[in-house]
Amino acid sequence: MTYDPIDYLPYDFANRRHIGPSPDEMAQMFSALGVDDLDQLIAETVPEDIRWDGELDFGKALSERELIHRMHSVAQKNKVLTSLIGQGYHGTITPPAIQRNILENPAWYTAYTPYQPEISQGRLEALLNFQTMICDLTGLEIANASLLDEATACAEAMTMAQRVAKSKVQAFFVDENCHPQNIAVMKTRAEPLGIEIVVGAPDDLEAEKVFGAIFQYPGTFGHVRDLSDQMAALHAAKAVGIVSADPMALCLLKEPGAMGADIAVGSTQRFGVPVGYGGPHAAYMACKDEMKRAMPGRIVGVSVDSHGNRAYRLSLQTREQHIRREKATSNVCTAQALLAVMASFYAVFHGPKGLRAIAQRIHRKTVRMVKGLEAAGFKVEPDVYFDTVTVDVGLLQRGVLQAAVQQGLNLRRVGKTKVGITLDERTRPQTIEAVWRAFGLVRKDDPAESEYRLPENLVRTSSYLQHDVFHMNRAETEMMRYMRRLADRDLALDRAMIPLGSCTMKLNAAVEMMPVSWREFSMIHPYAPKDQAAGYSELIGDLSDKLCQITGYDAISMQPNSGAQGEYAGLLTIRDWQRARGEGQRNVCLIPVNAHGTNPASAQMVGWKVVAVKCDAKGSIDLDDFRAKAEKHSDALAACMITYPSTHGVFERTVKEVCAITHEHGGQVYIDGANMNAMVGLSRPGDLGGDVSHLNLHKTFCIPHGGGGPGMGPIGVKAHLAPHLPGNPNGGDGAVSAAAFGSPSLLPISWAYCLMMGGKGLTQATRVAILNANYIAKRLDGAFDVLYRGDKGWVAHECILDVRPFEKSAGVTVEDIAKRLVDAGFHAPTMSWPVAGTLMVEPTESETKAELDRFCDAMLAIRDEIRAIEEDEIDRDTNPLKMAPHTMEDLVREWDRPYTREQGCFPPGAFRVDKYWPPVNRVDNVYGDRHLICTCPPMDEIAEAAE
Amino acid sequence: MTYDPIDYLPYDFANRRHIGPSPDEMAQMFSALGVDDLDQLIAETVPEDIRWDGELDFGKALSERELIHRMHSVAQKNKVLTSLIGQGYHGTITPPAIQRNILENPAWYTAYTPYQPEISQGRLEALLNFQTMICDLTGLEIANASLLDEATACAEAMTMAQRVAKSKVQAFFVDENCHPQNIAVMKTRAEPLGIEIVVGAPDDLEAEKVFGAIFQYPGTFGHVRDLSDQMAALHAAKAVGIVSADPMALCLLKEPGAMGADIAVGSTQRFGVPVGYGGPHAAYMACKDEMKRAMPGRIVGVSVDSHGNRAYRLSLQTREQHIRREKATSNVCTAQALLAVMASFYAVFHGPKGLRAIAQRIHRKTVRMVKGLEAAGFKVEPDVYFDTVTVDVGLLQRGVLQAAVQQGLNLRRVGKTKVGITLDERTRPQTIEAVWRAFGLVRKDDPAESEYRLPENLVRTSSYLQHDVFHMNRAETEMMRYMRRLADRDLALDRAMIPLGSCTMKLNAAVEMMPVSWREFSMIHPYAPKDQAAGYSELIGDLSDKLCQITGYDAISMQPNSGAQGEYAGLLTIRDWQRARGEGQRNVCLIPVNAHGTNPASAQMVGWKVVAVKCDAKGSIDLDDFRAKAEKHSDALAACMITYPSTHGVFERTVKEVCAITHEHGGQVYIDGANMNAMVGLSRPGDLGGDVSHLNLHKTFCIPHGGGGPGMGPIGVKAHLAPHLPGNPNGGDGAVSAAAFGSPSLLPISWAYCLMMGGKGLTQATRVAILNANYIAKRLDGAFDVLYRGDKGWVAHECILDVRPFEKSAGVTVEDIAKRLVDAGFHAPTMSWPVAGTLMVEPTESETKAELDRFCDAMLAIRDEIRAIEEDEIDRDTNPLKMAPHTMEDLVREWDRPYTREQGCFPPGAFRVDKYWPPVNRVDNVYGDRHLICTCPPMDEIAEAAE
Repeated sequence: MTYDPIDYLPYDFANRRHIGPSPDEMAQMFSALGVDDLDQLIAETVPEDIRWDGELDFGKALSERELIHRMHSVAQKNKVLTSLIGQGYHGTITPPAIQRNILENPAWYTAYTPYQPEISQGRLEALLNFQTMICDLTGLEIANASLLDEATACAEAMTMAQRVAKSKVQAFFVDENCHPQNIAVMKTRAEPLGIEIVVGAPDDLEAEKVFGAIFQYPGTFGHVRDLSDQMAALHAAKAVGIVSADPMALCLLKEPGAMGADIAVGSTQRFGVPVGYGGPHAAYMACKDEMKRAMPGRIVGVSVDSHGNRAYRLSLQTREQHIRREKATSNVCTAQALLAVMASFYAVFHGPKGLRAIAQRIHRKTVRMVKGLEAAGFKVEPDVYFDTVTVDVGLLQRGVLQAAVQQGLNLRRVGKTKVGITLDERTRPQTIEAVWRAFGLVRKDDPAESEYRLPENLVRTSSYLQHDVFHMNRAETEMMRYMRRLADRDLALDRAMIPLGSCTMKLNAAVEMMPVSWREFSMIHPYAPKDQAAGYSELIGDLSDKLCQITGYDAISMQPNSGAQGEYAGLLTIRDWQRARGEGQRNVCLIPVNAHGTNPASAQMVGWKVVAVKCDAKGSIDLDDFRAKAEKHSDALAACMITYPSTHGVFERTVKEVCAITHEHGGQVYIDGANMNAMVGLSRPGDLGGDVSHLNLHKTFCIPHGGGGPGMGPIGVKAHLAPHLPGNPNGGDGAVSAAAFGSPSLLPISWAYCLMMGGKGLTQATRVAILNANYIAKRLDGAFDVLYRGDKGWVAHECILDVRPFEKSAGVTVEDIAKRLVDAGFHAPTMSWPVAGTLMVEPTESETKAELDRFCDAMLAIRDEIRAIEEDEIDRDTNPLKMAPHTMEDLVREWDRPYTREQGCFPPGAFRVDKYWPPVNRVDNVYGDRHLICTCPPMDEIAEAAE
Repeated sequence: MTYDPIDYLPYDFANRRHIGPSPDEMAQMFSALGVDDLDQLIAETVPEDIRWDGELDFGKALSERELIHRMHSVAQKNKVLTSLIGQGYHGTITPPAIQRNILENPAWYTAYTPYQPEISQGRLEALLNFQTMICDLTGLEIANASLLDEATACAEAMTMAQRVAKSKVQAFFVDENCHPQNIAVMKTRAEPLGIEIVVGAPDDLEAEKVFGAIFQYPGTFGHVRDLSDQMAALHAAKAVGIVSADPMALCLLKEPGAMGADIAVGSTQRFGVPVGYGGPHAAYMACKDEMKRAMPGRIVGVSVDSHGNRAYRLSLQTREQHIRREKATSNVCTAQALLAVMASFYAVFHGPKGLRAIAQRIHRKTVRMVKGLEAAGFKVEPDVYFDTVTVDVGLLQRGVLQAAVQQGLNLRRVGKTKVGITLDERTRPQTIEAVWRAFGLVRKDDPAESEYRLPENLVRTSSYLQHDVFHMNRAETEMMRYMRRLADRDLALDRAMIPLGSCTMKLNAAVEMMPVSWREFSMIHPYAPKDQAAGYSELIGDLSDKLCQITGYDAISMQPNSGAQGEYAGLLTIRDWQRARGEGQRNVCLIPVNAHGTNPASAQMVGWKVVAVKCDAKGSIDLDDFRAKAEKHSDALAACMITYPSTHGVFERTVKEVCAITHEHGGQVYIDGANMNAMVGLSRPGDLGGDVSHLNLHKTFCIPHGGGGPGMGPIGVKAHLAPHLPGNPNGGDGAVSAAAFGSPSLLPISWAYCLMMGGKGLTQATRVAILNANYIAKRLDGAFDVLYRGDKGWVAHECILDVRPFEKSAGVTVEDIAKRLVDAGFHAPTMSWPVAGTLMVEPTESETKAELDRFCDAMLAIRDEIRAIEEDEIDRDTNPLKMAPHTMEDLVREWDRPYTREQGCFPPGAFRVDKYWPPVNRVDNVYGDRHLICTCPPMDEIAEAAE
C-alpha cells in the first residue's frame, strides 16, 4: 500500500493561517496575471539591485502550540511582584467583562482608526465617552480621544502652550514634582525647539519669565497642593498653566479646571488598563474651549448624517498632520484608542459613585499605612497626600527595598535615603502589613479605620460623570450588551478586508494576542528591578535581533510607541550624532512630496527646515531635483526622509542613488518603514543606504490597530548611530517616551509573528502581499487607471486607483466611491492620499483571493454605476453613489429614488444574509465642525428602542 | 468636612454585576407591584411553612479579583502532566482562533438550544457541519448533533439497538476491548432494563444469542481489527452491530460503515476540545438511514422557510422526550452543542487533508515509540495498532509508572503487569524520548522515520469531508469571519433577554468563564493519579459542601453531566437503596402531569412504571388523586417525582404533605431541581421532604447553555442514600457517566458564582428572580391572563401566559406570538409547555427593569395587534403576526401587505440601530421532516455574495 508523503504540515502557521490565498487560489492568480509563478512576479517587480541576496534565518518556524510553549517559558522569567512604585503606573483591576469583550475581542481590536465615520459609530461613541469622562474629571471643556503616554502628553502640552500663549518668552517651567520620565521627555522635546526648561518648586515659579508651566498633581513624591495661585500668576503673565493630573485622584480632589488650569494631561492607565511594563495605555489631554484648535490628537465630535440624525465623527481633521504636513501642530498620528475605550468602559462600569468609592478606599488605605509608619517613628512626607508618600529611612534605604522584595513588593527608590510608596485599588490589608514588615514592623491592619487626610480646600466639590451613560444600569448583562451593540455598529477585520493603502491591515492572529493578557507580561511595572523582567529582556533582545536581520540595521530601540514617534526618535538620533561630531549646524531635511504626512511634522519637531523634493510622472522621486536641492543645501543638509517602496506603491530603482547623494553631502538617510510589508525578506533598508528606519509593528508585524491605536514604532539604526539612540526615561537623557521600551506588552505579538512565520514564511508573506496587490490592479485594469507602476508594469504591495476623471464625467467623487463601498460591506481604501482624488489599495497577504474578488466585484460594479451616470441612464444627484451609504432606515422609509432598494442596498460584493449595515447615512463633516460638540449629548436624544 | 460613608462597595459582584435591577429600578418595581419592599413580596409569595429559617453562610463574598486569586491558588494544586493514558481521552491542540472566537465568545456560549430555528441559523449550520463530519468519518448515513459522552452514547446505542433489532433475545454483547468506563455505564444502564450484558473477546461473539453487540475501535488496549465478520454474523442473526470508534483513527482506518456497522458512537474530544478532567466534550452517534427514527438526541436538518429559502432546524422533534414523555426513546435532553461546534470547526480548520496528516503523524510517532521499546526487548501488544499499545513489564509496572511521572508523563496502569501508552497530536519527539527513559532507555527519536504498521485491509479507502465547507480557504482571517458570520445570525444572551420558562437563562459572567480556559483545569486527564488533581478535589469538595447547605442534603454526586442524567442517577440511587433493604419490588413512580418531560423518561430508564397524578385548576398537584394513587400502589411505590416550585410557576403549599404521603407508603421523594432558582436561600428541598434532587448547574449556577449544552446535573441526597450514589466509572459499579465528576471543567463556573455571590447574594438573587417574574406578570396583567398564581396572587420565578383564546378570537397561535417576538429582538418564551398553547416566561434575576420593560412593551404591542385582528382592522392571514419574523429580504422585496414595512420590522421593543435580523423567515418544520436532509447541502446553493 502507499501512504501520503509526510510533507503536508497541518500546523504550518505561515501557509495555513497567516497567508490568505491557498495554493490553488495562487495558481489562478498567476494565470490571471500571466506569470508562471511567484518567483517570476517578484523578479519582475523588485529590481534586482535592490534585492537582498541573503535569506532570513530564524530557525524552524514554530506552530501555534509551540509558540505558546515558548512564550510561556519566557513569561515565567518575569517575576510578578506587587508594585507600589507608583510614578504614574498603578495597580488596577480590569473588569473581566471588559477584558473579554473588548481587549480580547477582534471586533474591537482589529478595527482601524475611525476616519470613515459611518462604519465607526461604535468606537466613536466609546471614545466620546472617554472625552466626556476626561472633561468632567479635569473640569475642562474639551478633551481629545487620547495621546500616547503621559510623558509625551506633557511634551505636547508644552508645545501647545507655546502656540497659544500670548507671552513670547522662550522658557517653560516644570514642577520638580513632575514624574522623572515626564521631565525627561519634555527636556528632549524642548531642546530642538529652543525652549528653555526651568525645573523648580511650585512656589519658585516666576510666571512672567515663562510662556507656560506644568505641575504634577499629585506630585511624584505624593504632594497634593492647590495650584490656584500659580495659575493666577501665569494668567497675569499671559502664560499657560498646565496640570498633569491622576484621574483617580481627581475623583476625590479639586480638579485642575477649578484651579484655573488651561490644560490638563495625564494617564488613564489606572482605569482598568494593566501597566504592561510601560504600555500601552491612553494618556489624555483636555483644555479650555478657546484653545481647542491648537490641541493635538484626534477629537471625536457630534455631527449629523444626511438625514439629520445624530452621528459621531472625528472633528477638526484639518488640524491633522497628514493635511497640514510641516505646519501641523504635532506629528501625533496613532492614539491609544483601544486603551481609551477600555478606560472609558471602566468609568461606565463603576460610575461616579463607584470611582469615588475606589478613590476613597485608596486614600483611606494610604492613611492607614502612613499611620502605622508614623506610629513607629518613621518620617513620612508630605502631610497632604492622596495615595503616595515618601519615607526618609536614611541608611536603611537598601535594606527596606530588599525586605520589601522579600515580601513580594516593589517600593520606589527615591534619592539616596528615601523610599516612595504608592497604593492603589489592588492594595489589600495584607499588602499594607507587608509594607510594614519591610520597615521592620509587625502590625495588623484594620480596614474599618477610615481617616482622611485631605484639607477642605483640596476636596473636590463639583460633581462629575453626570451624563446618563455613566449612570446606566451596571449589571454585567447590560454592560455586555452595550459593548456588543457598539462593536456591531463597526466594521473591522473580523468581518471584511480593510484595503488601506496607508496602513497594512493584516491578520492579527488569536494566538499572537493571547500572551498580551498573561499577568507575567501585563503586570510588570516599567521601573521594576531589571532582574524581575528577565523574560521581557529575552523577548526584546531576540525580537531586536530578528528586526536587525530583517532591516539590515545594527541596533534597535523599542522606545518609540508609534510610527510618528519613531520618525521623531530617528531624526533626533541623527541630530545627536551630527552634533557629537561637530556638525550641529545641519538643519535641512529633504522630503519628497509624496512622503507620509508625519515626515515633515517630525522634521519640524527636531528643529529642521523641510525642503520638498518633486516627484516625476511615475510617482518616483525626481532625481534631478533631489540632486539639485542636496547640492544647494550641502552644508546644511541634515537628512533626507524617503519611503521605500514609495508611497506611490512603486519600487523605485533610484533609491540607492538618492541615498548616495545624501551621504555625499553629509546627510543621513531616514527610510520610513511604513511600507516594510513590501520588503521583509526581499530587500533591506539598511542595505539600500538607510541610516535609520522606523518599523510600524502595528502594520507589518501584526500588532492590531485597536480602532486607532495602540501602535509601536521602534527604530533600527546603523552602528554609528547606536550610541545616540533614545535614553532611559527613568534617569537617562534623550528619552522620547515614558517607558524604555515604549509599549512592551505588545511586543509578544510581533515576536510571536516572527517565530511562527520563520524567515521563509515572512518572505513568502511579502511576496504574496505583492501578488495580492497586483491581482487587484489586474482585475480593475480597464475600469480604473492604476496611477503608478514599476518598469515591468507591476505595482508593489499597494496600488493607487485614479478616480479623478469621474468627478468631471459623472460628478462622482472619491468620497462617493468610498461610501458606496460601505454598501458592499467594505472599509474604503485610503482616500486622497498620497494623491488627492485617488484611492490607494493595499490588500496585504492575509486576504484570500475570494475576498479580493469580492472587493473587485464591488469596485467594478461601482464603475458600472458611474458609467450609467456618464451615459445619463441615472440622475447625477440621485443615484446609488451619491446616496451611499444606505442604511436599514432607507429601506423602511418611502422610496422615491430612480433605482431600487435592492440596487441601493445590495450591490455586488455585499453579503446577503450577513450584510453589514452602517448605523448612519453619510456624515456631514462641515456641520460637525461648525457646531462642535465633543462630549456626550443628552441620552434621551439617542434612545433607541422605538416608542 | 464630611466624607461619604464607606458602605458603597464598588466590587460587590452580587449587587453590582449579577443582579439586574438597580436599587432605583427595584423601588419602581415595588411601587408598580404595590408592595413596600422585597421582604413583603417574598413573604407573600413563599409560604411560611416551606421557608428555610436558616441563612446561607459562605463567608465574605469575593470580588472578581479575589475570585481569580482564589481560583488561581486552587488551580495551582492541580499538576499538569503530559497524559499518555488514552482510554478515550487524548491530548489535542485547540486552534487558538477557535478558543477565542467560540469557547470564549458569549455570542456562542450564552445561546440557548436552537428550538427557535429562525434565530439559531448560525449554530444550526455549525452543528450540521458536525453531523456531516460524523457521517463522513463513520461511513454512516445519519448522525445526531452530539450526545453527552462516549460511555452514555454506548448505552444509548445499546438501548437503541434493542428498539430496532428484530432479534428479541435479551442479551447484549460487549467487546472486552471497550473502554472500562463504557462497559461500566452500559452495565448500569442494562440492568434495570433487563438486558443481560455479555463481555467477551470479539472472536467469541455468538451473534444469535444477542440483540446487538458493541466493539471498541481501536480497542482500549490498542487493537485494531476488521469487524466485518462480526457485523455479518450479527446481521444474519437479525441483531444490531455497533462500533465505538475514535474519529481521529477513522481519518486513517477503515470506517465502521464499510465494515457493515449499523450504529457508530464515539467521542469527538480529541478534535480540539481539552480533556478537562473528564468533560465536557461532544460524543457522537451515527446510524443507518433506516434506523433514524430510533436515534436519540437532537438532529439538525435542512428545511425551507416561508419564502422557500433554505433554513436549518431541529428535525424529528416529535421523538423528543418532552413530547413523548415515558414513551420517549431516551431521556437525553441536553447535548454538548458548544463542544460539537468546536469539534466541527476543528475539522473545518484542518480539512480532510489536515486531519489525515494529523492521524498519520500520530500513527508514525506510535510506530517510532514502539520500535524503540521493541529494540530493547519489551513485549509490545498488539501487532496492529493506531496510537495505543500495551507493554507487559511484569514486576516493573510500578517502577515504570513512577519513572514516567518523574518524566512528567502519565501512563496507563493495565492489569497488574502491563502499562498502556497512547500518543496524540501533542506528542513531540521529546515525549517519545521521555517514554523511553521511563522504560530505562536512552535513545534519540528520529522524526524522519516514517513507518506505518497498518495492514492493507484496515486502511481507509473511501474519501471523507468532501463538502465545500471542509475545503474552504483555511486562512485564519477567513475562519474568523466565518465564525463571526455564524455567530451574528444567532440571538443569544449577549444581545437580549431569553425569557424561557423551561430554562434559567441568567448571566454567565466573564470572570466565571475565565478559569475554564486555564490549563490547570483543562488539561487534567480524568483518570490521572488523584494527587495530581488536588485542586479539583478541593474545588469539588467545597462546591459540594455549599450545594448541600443550599439544598439541605447530606451528600452530592457530581457525576451526572446533564439534568436528565441527574434524574436518572437519582432514581437509580433510590432503587439501589430499596434493593439493598430488600424492597426491590418497588417499581411505581408517581409523576404529576405537569412534570418535566424528562421525568417520566428517566423513570422508564430505571425500569419503573409511571403513574400520572392530576393537577388542579391552579396548576397544583391534586392531593386527593395523589393520595389515592399512593395508596393504591402502596406496596409497589418506589418514588414520586415532583418539581418545586411546580412547573406551573407556583409555590404549592401542599409539597410537604405530598412528601409525607410518599414516605408513608414507603416511597422516596425525588424533587426536580430545575426550579432551584426560585429556592436558593429561601427554601430547601431537603427540608421539604425530598430524598434526592438534581441541580441544573447550567440553570441556577451560571454554567452557560452553549447553544444546547454543556450542562451539569449533580444530585444531592439525604444521608441514607449516600452509599448508593453512582460509583466510579473507572473501576467501580453503578456509574452513569464516563467521568467520576461528569464535566468537571465547568465546575469552576458554579463555584465562582457561589464564592462571589456569598450566601446573602445568592438569596438576594432568588428574591429578585421572583420580583422580576412578578413585575412581568403585573405589567402584562389585563392583556394576557396569567394562568397560575399563589394564594396571594403572586407567581414564583416564572409565569405562564395564556394565549389560547387568541387562536379562536384572531387565529393567532402561540407560535405566531413567538415568531413576532423575534421581530422585537427577543427569543421567545417557552412555548406550549407545561400547558399547550401557552407561553412560560422566566426572566431571572440578571435582567434589568429596562429589559423587562422592553419585553413587556413588545408583548403589549403584540396584544394590540391581536386586538386589531379581532376587530377586523387587519387581515387574519396577512398581518404582522402571521408574517413574522420579518427579514431584511422582506424590506427589499415588493411590499404588498396591509401594514407598513415599519410596522412589520420595528414593532415596539425592537432596537432601531441595533436591530437583530433573523436570517430566514418562518421555518417550515413539516417540510423538513418530510424531506429529511441532515448533512450539509451543496455549497453553491448557499452562496451568499450577490452575483
